[in-house]
Amino acid sequence: MAPAGEKKGILERLDAGEIVIGDGGFVFALEKRGYVKAGPWTPEAAAEHPEAVRQLHREFLRAGSNVMQTFTFYASDDKLENRGHTQQFTGQQINEAACDLAREVANEGDALVAGGVSQTPSYLSCKSEDEVKAIFKKQLDVFVSKNVDFLIAEYFEHVEEAEWAVQVLKTTEKPVAATLCIGPEGDLNGVSPGDCAVRLVKAGAQIVGVNCHFDPETCVKTVKLMKEGVEKAGLKAHYMSQPLAYHTPDCNCQGFIDLPEFPFSLEPRILTRWDMQKYAREAYAAGIRYIGGCCGFEPYHIRALSEELATERGFLPAGSEKHGNWGSGLEMHTKPWVRARARRDYWEKLKPASGRPFCPSLAKPDGWGVTKGHDDLMQQKEATSQEQLKALFEKAKDH
Amino acid sequence: MAPAGEKKGILERLDAGEIVIGDGGFVFALEKRGYVKAGPWTPEAAAEHPEAVRQLHREFLRAGSNVMQTFTFYASDDKLENRGHTQQFTGQQINEAACDLAREVANEGDALVAGGVSQTPSYLSCKSEDEVKAIFKKQLDVFVSKNVDFLIAEYFEHVEEAEWAVQVLKTTEKPVAATLCIGPEGDLNGVSPGDCAVRLVKAGAQIVGVNCHFDPETCVKTVKLMKEGVEKAGLKAHYMSQPLAYHTPDCNCQGFIDLPEFPFSLEPRILTRWDMQKYAREAYAAGIRYIGGCCGFEPYHIRALSEELATERGFLPAGSEKHGNWGSGLEMHTKPWVRARARRDYWEKLKPASGRPFCPSLAKPDGWGVTKGHDDLMQQKEATSQEQLKALFEKAKDH
Amino acid sequence: MAPAGEKKGILERLDAGEIVIGDGGFVFALEKRGYVKAGPWTPEAAAEHPEAVRQLHREFLRAGSNVMQTFTFYASDDKLENRGHTQQFTGQQINEAACDLAREVANEGDALVAGGVSQTPSYLSCKSEDEVKAIFKKQLDVFVSKNVDFLIAEYFEHVEEAEWAVQVLKTTEKPVAATLCIGPEGDLNGVSPGDCAVRLVKAGAQIVGVNCHFDPETCVKTVKLMKEGVEKAGLKAHYMSQPLAYHTPDCNCQGFIDLPEFPFSLEPRILTRWDMQKYAREAYAAGIRYIGGCCGFEPYHIRALSEELATERGFLPAGSEKHGNWGSGLEMHTKPWVRARARRDYWEKLKPASGRPFCPSLAKPDGWGVTKGHDDLMQQKEATSQEQLKALFEKAKDH
Amino acid sequence: MAPAGEKKGILERLDAGEIVIGDGGFVFALEKRGYVKAGPWTPEAAAEHPEAVRQLHREFLRAGSNVMQTFTFYASDDKLENRGHTQQFTGQQINEAACDLAREVANEGDALVAGGVSQTPSYLSCKSEDEVKAIFKKQLDVFVSKNVDFLIAEYFEHVEEAEWAVQVLKTTEKPVAATLCIGPEGDLNGVSPGDCAVRLVKAGAQIVGVNCHFDPETCVKTVKLMKEGVEKAGLKAHYMSQPLAYHTPDCNCQGFIDLPEFPFSLEPRILTRWDMQKYAREAYAAGIRYIGGCCGFEPYHIRALSEELATERGFLPAGSEKHGNWGSGLEMHTKPWVRARARRDYWEKLKPASGRPFCPSLAKPDGWGVTKGHDDLMQQKEATSQEQLKALFEKAKDH
Repeated sequence: MAPAGEKKGILERLDAGEIVIGDGGFVFALEKRGYVKAGPWTPEAAAEHPEAVRQLHREFLRAGSNVMQTFTFYASDDKLENRGHTQQFTGQQINEAACDLAREVANEGDALVAGGVSQTPSYLSCKSEDEVKAIFKKQLDVFVSKNVDFLIAEYFEHVEEAEWAVQVLKTTEKPVAATLCIGPEGDLNGVSPGDCAVRLVKAGAQIVGVNCHFDPETCVKTVKLMKEGVEKAGLKAHYMSQPLAYHTPDCNCQGFIDLPEFPFSLEPRILTRWDMQKYAREAYAAGIRYIGGCCGFEPYHIRALSEELATERGFLPAGSEKHGNWGSGLEMHTKPWVRARARRDYWEKLKPASGRPFCPSLAKPDGWGVTKGHDDLMQQKEATSQEQLKALFEKAKDH
Repeated sequence: MAPAGEKKGILERLDAGEIVIGDGGFVFALEKRGYVKAGPWTPEAAAEHPEAVRQLHREFLRAGSNVMQTFTFYASDDKLENRGHTQQFTGQQINEAACDLAREVANEGDALVAGGVSQTPSYLSCKSEDEVKAIFKKQLDVFVSKNVDFLIAEYFEHVEEAEWAVQVLKTTEKPVAATLCIGPEGDLNGVSPGDCAVRLVKAGAQIVGVNCHFDPETCVKTVKLMKEGVEKAGLKAHYMSQPLAYHTPDCNCQGFIDLPEFPFSLEPRILTRWDMQKYAREAYAAGIRYIGGCCGFEPYHIRALSEELATERGFLPAGSEKHGNWGSGLEMHTKPWVRARARRDYWEKLKPASGRPFCPSLAKPDGWGVTKGHDDLMQQKEATSQEQLKALFEKAKDH
Repeated sequence: MAPAGEKKGILERLDAGEIVIGDGGFVFALEKRGYVKAGPWTPEAAAEHPEAVRQLHREFLRAGSNVMQTFTFYASDDKLENRGHTQQFTGQQINEAACDLAREVANEGDALVAGGVSQTPSYLSCKSEDEVKAIFKKQLDVFVSKNVDFLIAEYFEHVEEAEWAVQVLKTTEKPVAATLCIGPEGDLNGVSPGDCAVRLVKAGAQIVGVNCHFDPETCVKTVKLMKEGVEKAGLKAHYMSQPLAYHTPDCNCQGFIDLPEFPFSLEPRILTRWDMQKYAREAYAAGIRYIGGCCGFEPYHIRALSEELATERGFLPAGSEKHGNWGSGLEMHTKPWVRARARRDYWEKLKPASGRPFCPSLAKPDGWGVTKGHDDLMQQKEATSQEQLKALFEKAKDH
Repeated sequence: MAPAGEKKGILERLDAGEIVIGDGGFVFALEKRGYVKAGPWTPEAAAEHPEAVRQLHREFLRAGSNVMQTFTFYASDDKLENRGHTQQFTGQQINEAACDLAREVANEGDALVAGGVSQTPSYLSCKSEDEVKAIFKKQLDVFVSKNVDFLIAEYFEHVEEAEWAVQVLKTTEKPVAATLCIGPEGDLNGVSPGDCAVRLVKAGAQIVGVNCHFDPETCVKTVKLMKEGVEKAGLKAHYMSQPLAYHTPDCNCQGFIDLPEFPFSLEPRILTRWDMQKYAREAYAAGIRYIGGCCGFEPYHIRALSEELATERGFLPAGSEKHGNWGSGLEMHTKPWVRARARRDYWEKLKPASGRPFCPSLAKPDGWGVTKGHDDLMQQKEATSQEQLKALFEKAKDH
């Protein structure tokens, strides 16, 4: 269970109260770099273009990440087939290549390798528990043979499927983390975040939390609810959050998928590095110690997390060699009004303009109309709005 | 003058009416990846972290770029010293490393290597013509010894310095391109785009245009004015534009530097891929045949240019392997309302929300107050507003 | 209890299922006309400038109002003194003049006169129940002597004071309506809308609801909660809403008072006539039959309510003589693109621009900081945000 | 030529350097009050509902207006017929009633009566000069018989028709003012503001300027151009501006008519009283001494002009009895954070939110497409954009 060599394992770190900085989302970052196709979102690039995947790992490592997640998102066999991917490489080859790349870069610094599984088409098409578990088992076999340091079940919309994943992952002795892509209103069956977390902990996950689908404010709020649930149940866990790097105050319960801008016009919503420092601070204050990112996160976003928590961690990441604290690199600028921006106060208070006066501030999620008339879903959605929109206000208070 | 091997040179391509797709801006892209420091913006990463620079070159090549610009921006000796950069590597080493990386990747596809010089602190501190030219000469020596395919004098705010650069570059027999970072109101001394272009052509540049500082709409408008000037003077030239990937309808004559969001909160202004397709179309319609990008451009932005002009060029870039035309990759999505986004019409019409309801749409450029009272400058600025803000309206008309 | 002459009383109308259209807010409308001072907001104009008050009554009558509320808001003696008003007229004179004006205009059409009392400084400064009731009694004496048709206790932030008011008003035999200026989170002591309504009904109010402080969406939502509470308690009542004519999705529990724009920069928030038609429809669908307005309502806003419900009421108001249905008055415009606006679809879908690109969409209410640390209040506020912000989303769904 | 009684005439006032405060636009104000129909915009209310017109006159008088314009806009016989108005009253009756009302209220204070004519359908349908002049003559006869104090030819889109109007009005000995509804790009035939003004002065107008169609910033800019033209021509005139009370930075050359929000969803664009104080200051600084308003102006907007220029005029208007300087009426508010708003600094700096996060900041004027292809018009429009959009930037500079 211990990581290769002398590195401390994930649980040792968290048990010791250390902050673990996660990495960012690979599919979105590599889509922009030209190696992942939006739609299928499958990770064949691990085998096809290893240098591109390796470089992104390195950038996150340099930004302060303590975890290299294997680039195996949606790499279950059923998913790879389902999306019509021309199979130049088998699922096993992709999973193995991803493990090798993560390990290679992890070895270059103080990072662990985490093997990841995520929700499957099999579950959504109502396959049996055994069938779904067999899918996870196949990916797990690669992770075991490649001896990853720990395991993450991530991006589950239904806690039941996540439980099954955890149960499979727990057949090894490796530590298991589990994150759902849900907001404060709970999973798509309406199971609350607190109840979800309790079920995941009971299934064996040592670390629980959320990833993807919502912005940092919403994710921190959701993890808080998970923590409350776990504590109320008299259980113990570590907590993690890996949110989007997009502002999504206007999401419904399905998250950014339903925003009209998904996935090709999300640019105006991208968080700044200063937004990220705020996120790191709030996550830390909420008791979250595994703090990372998902779709939209670029290396500089992760670096911002590392910089915000540098005092708590005791060091800056390597990448800060190229980044002045709170904009201090502007101090030598020739124009006095640009030099005047080299200070925390300036960037914290700035309300950045979009340069898009013909665009609105918020969008109406798609899918509302579709579900209208389904009373149960609507009530659930109503609840969602309440929770998620609070983020809007808390932002107002704090800024 | 011919490029290494059998490749057609830049002038042969342009003379033949081919479209040349440029690359994107390296300093901003590598700043986000952790290899360039905002403020100095110097390119020591070419020597320090060659794998990161090489990878970015590859991504642009894959996106369809026909030109690998050497990562030598601000790599003149006076700049490297001036910004207090700890000289682990000499300017010569950096320039040489940058040439080698560009050539290595250019050889992997149909791309040429362009050696670039840009404006110098020496000029701004009123050094003599000879001194400034000596600075350019030093970088040029490296480009000659490394046998780049052609030369670019880029990012000049004063046409006079650009003329000097062109004169130095013309001492070789390599083709010379020259771009200013100006808008429709002309250079910082108020020389109009048309007059700037004429002077650059007379100095020997075969390709003229603009780069950086303004958004695509503004840049295309400026190059149009250059073209009109050159044609009026009975001269001939090829035209190029390499704009920002940020919407800047609210800039004054100094461009995005003066926007309060520069350089750390520009995210809400980032152009989408669809904005880029529009840019490619407009640039092409304006007679611009060397179409690339500058700060903010990521590989997917360059790919969008290549895709928009795929019919005219006769082929798609390699990177389109991972990109469905106009969002067609969404066709297999499970939700009908997301599938409904797999069409051109949807993305062209979408007005993307910022998710930032507490932020304004436009910003007030800094520096106005400073120049107030200087009547000449203000009149010039007034002129600027007229020209630049037209972009806002033309956008309104077209969308 | 019957109104003067042959008119049906307020309860007869509501019992018969008729829609009663209220009037708009006098203090804001007359402030813009120059007769009320923002800050004190006292109604001495009833005595000082009767022609201005009479004219506003007439305009609301013409717009379809069935109720002329006496312009006696904040006309309790303690309020008039408290705000340092130079007493050219006594409180009694003001109250009497207001009654005469309301009656004069009511007699010109099918409207009833309602005498109104509102919250007192005496209650806020913790005077005794007897003292506060004496204040109400004094105003009531005028209403009785002037024989108004029914009574309204309105604009109460604390249900307790509203109960006292109702108890006083019930000493006559006139029908009593009672409205609080609260949102879905309840009164300032955290009493829920449902509980507030039950208490008011038990105190004797035959009509209950809300007025002022929030936009129509929020008010309709609040009255729905009141209705649910009353029905759950096995009681019966009629329901009314008289909201702001300002969009306030960003309010906290104290309503628009805490918005930074209050009271002198609320212009960008003013509802259009089409927003008002939507409000009328939603209020009607929620079972509210006394539908009027408060601060910000101009006569054309009330007319829009009357027009939306013209089919249900069986007639258009007199003022519709000067208003084409859904913009039909534009049909004869010379420009085809303006004629194209003469249709319901156009106005319903239009998202009107602010012409203010340097302004944000939402504001941060003041006062948050002040109450921070007071845990009870904050929890209550948290609840508030949830409820109030739902309005934002429901708007999104419907438009 | 002297006004009735002892009052100083309009030219005596302006010659003496006095500021003349105009009134606001009657058709929009009375449309909201229920007495004017949008579309025809005709003033039959002068005869039908004299009390409503009288009251509005009084409110403007009380707000500081020195001029009561007769409510005779679009009251030419051809217009009244053209718009299908059921003629309960003849054009002559309407014009006479309007004169009587204006005189009645003017006599209550220090105001003059101005008889107004505006552009005619006859001109637009290419009737002859004689026919158009006959139309003006008919209205003029009423003004002469009612002995108005001076005459205004206003709301002309073509300077030629305005010249004809001035020529007719000059057949009396009364002073004549002439305003066009144009922006900086000139009239609809492309005659520049400077040339327009020169022609109007040569035709005999002693006061020239603009009214309606654009916001105050644009109108002040346009009048400046007129003044420059007149002075360049060695002529002399007084200057006036009567702009909209709507922000219109996004207009094309036809003004707010072409905005999609016209005329029923302009609410988010309404100027605050503080915007108006800025307008008054800028108009004064530009040498404009007759400062009033047009569509959208309510009495409090005119009062704001009077208050801003109270020092220069030496007195406050009667209506300021009900208005604390720069919000000082809030000083006694119970909440400290509302009291904190009782200061100039607060209101000048506030960027008011729209409460409409689903709406954009700017709109695209209609009609562009229609005129596309007409090269002359488009070139003119291009010029327009330049000029009008400068307003956007100057706003940015000043705020």
